[in-house]
Amino acid sequence: MGGSLGLAARSKGLASPVVGFDIDPRALELALERGAVDESASDPAEAVSGADLVFLSTPLRVIVEVFEEIAPALTPGMLVTDVGSTKSRVVREVGSRVPRGVHFIGGHPIAGSEHEGISAADEDLYRGAYWILTPTDETDPAAYGRLVRFIGGLDARVLALPADRHDEAMALMSHLPQFVASVLMEFAADAMKGEPGLPFAAGGGFRDMTRVASSSPDMWLGILRDNREAALDALDGFRDSLSQARGLLAGEDWEGLGELLAAAQAARRSMPEKPGVRVGDLVEVDVEIPDRPGALAGITTAVGESGVNIEDLHIVHSAEGARGTVRLLVEGRDAAARAEDSLTSHGYRASVRESE
Amino acid sequence: MGGSLGLAARSKGLASPVVGFDIDPRALELALERGAVDESASDPAEAVSGADLVFLSTPLRVIVEVFEEIAPALTPGMLVTDVGSTKSRVVREVGSRVPRGVHFIGGHPIAGSEHEGISAADEDLYRGAYWILTPTDETDPAAYGRLVRFIGGLDARVLALPADRHDEAMALMSHLPQFVASVLMEFAADAMKGEPGLPFAAGGGFRDMTRVASSSPDMWLGILRDNREAALDALDGFRDSLSQARGLLAGEDWEGLGELLAAAQAARRSMPEKPGVRVGDLVEVDVEIPDRPGALAGITTAVGESGVNIEDLHIVHSAEGARGTVRLLVEGRDAAARAEDSLTSHGYRASVRESE
Repeated sequence: MGGSLGLAARSKGLASPVVGFDIDPRALELALERGAVDESASDPAEAVSGADLVFLSTPLRVIVEVFEEIAPALTPGMLVTDVGSTKSRVVREVGSRVPRGVHFIGGHPIAGSEHEGISAADEDLYRGAYWILTPTDETDPAAYGRLVRFIGGLDARVLALPADRHDEAMALMSHLPQFVASVLMEFAADAMKGEPGLPFAAGGGFRDMTRVASSSPDMWLGILRDNREAALDALDGFRDSLSQARGLLAGEDWEGLGELLAAAQAARRSMPEKPGVRVGDLVEVDVEIPDRPGALAGITTAVGESGVNIEDLHIVHSAEGARGTVRLLVEGRDAAARAEDSLTSHGYRASVRESE
Repeated sequence: MGGSLGLAARSKGLASPVVGFDIDPRALELALERGAVDESASDPAEAVSGADLVFLSTPLRVIVEVFEEIAPALTPGMLVTDVGSTKSRVVREVGSRVPRGVHFIGGHPIAGSEHEGISAADEDLYRGAYWILTPTDETDPAAYGRLVRFIGGLDARVLALPADRHDEAMALMSHLPQFVASVLMEFAADAMKGEPGLPFAAGGGFRDMTRVASSSPDMWLGILRDNREAALDALDGFRDSLSQARGLLAGEDWEGLGELLAAAQAARRSMPEKPGVRVGDLVEVDVEIPDRPGALAGITTAVGESGVNIEDLHIVHSAEGARGTVRLLVEGRDAAARAEDSLTSHGYRASVRESE
């Protein structure tokens, strides 16, 4: 994650210098050699000293600890984010430790692979990927806008979600599939013992379904610890569905089973593709920021709910009084209309700006 | 399947002419246009008339019916095979209808995708893929050798398995994963209703795991009907594993869960890659054919159990008496030694031929 981020930020000229620290000196050396960082630091506090923007790309379980290490070196105006796969605990625990004037916004790029470490770093990892941000009631709109622009500069697409909804969604779409893949792989490997010729014959379906089982167990333990309750909820729902489907097969209810398979096919085929790099024109949507806490989180979440990415975000005439306006840029007029509808239905005053 | 086969056979000069029939006249016309067949026939019997080798590339549920249609046009020496995804029923039902002197050998290429029809035909579909054959006690070694050579000519790799073990293995490695993928997709789609932004954020893991859910429901209903008992066994075993794993998560047994994830990771990482096209030297293994029914099936299965593909197969001095010898060609000396060991342990007299 960190290596890919450094490679991308440097190649796109988004930051200079990029300063890195890694607990493993060899990884840090390799990051220098590969051009993922301009400079290496000898400890986390040195790495962040004087930085505009800090990415905590550590394993999930040490994010809070590393934040505590860097906190003394953070100065007002600095913006810190992370790339952890769960958000509620991190946002809560880091949030309570943020020095005055420093900004922290939780993040989670939906990118990566079962490969780990600086040797797997890929300058294009984030290209066209979603990057979830989890603003809170305290999030500063201007800092949020800076982060959105940086992520947009990586050709990634920002989607805003409250941390708890992020975690529920990931339990369903990431943690449950990972759990199922690992159990399926282990079950099949056990059942295939004594049939040495068979694993060779595994087709693409089995290979696809078990690919994530080769991910790091440590990483997944950390994720499942943080998000245990939501993962259990998702798992129990899935087990109920599986039992019902088993009943159709056992009872030779071919009509019912056919309906299930057809519904799954329709759902899979209607699933949006990975977003890819933005190609449409940017359209501006202006939203009045109400004078209450959490306005930015509410606005960005309302837009996220409509499935629209915020490509850029600026604060306009915020200095004129208590009420400011946030100007969102989204891709294309359809997306702008959807964002406007969703904002309006959530009680915000939003309007698509007509271009001349 | 049929379209890809025609394209490959024609481009590699394995058969001429390739004559095709399809129940859908437009598909047949497109097959001609795309060069998947040299000639189109007006019915199945006309298509097979005078053929050396017949591939039944129909949906699973009509293989037997189509075989009955072509049976009157089959003459002694002709070789018929199929590409159905389950084998026990087809091999039993077609086997009991084979005219005297005609050869039928069940087959299942482990290839294909969630896309269907002639428009998805791909000349390279079988390149480097496994192709399972299910010889029986009645299978004629010379006919089997012809089929092995044809499949080898497609750059696919033959693995022999008895039909019932093929079906058990596929229940585990294909039908169970498909079932789980469909249930996971349907469950997640249902749970994501009202969160229109979320499906966009599905990462590669979810996409990989649900890809096969977009396959044809009709095809899968046919497979699950044929192989219901083995699929239920696999499903029940998987559900037990899932319940045990859930117990680890619910009970916060992080050590136990870590062991499970690590075992799954190790199993996935040690899973052999798709075989790819043969690159090593061919080594000959001679095996005496005992004078008893089922000798060929026994020999090919023993080799399959060792994970070795038979690249070619000839009958040598079979005319000299009741005892013949079958000469197998396998890739490399290691594979030859493994095949020899497995054959010897199954009571066959086998020897690797030393090259000069």
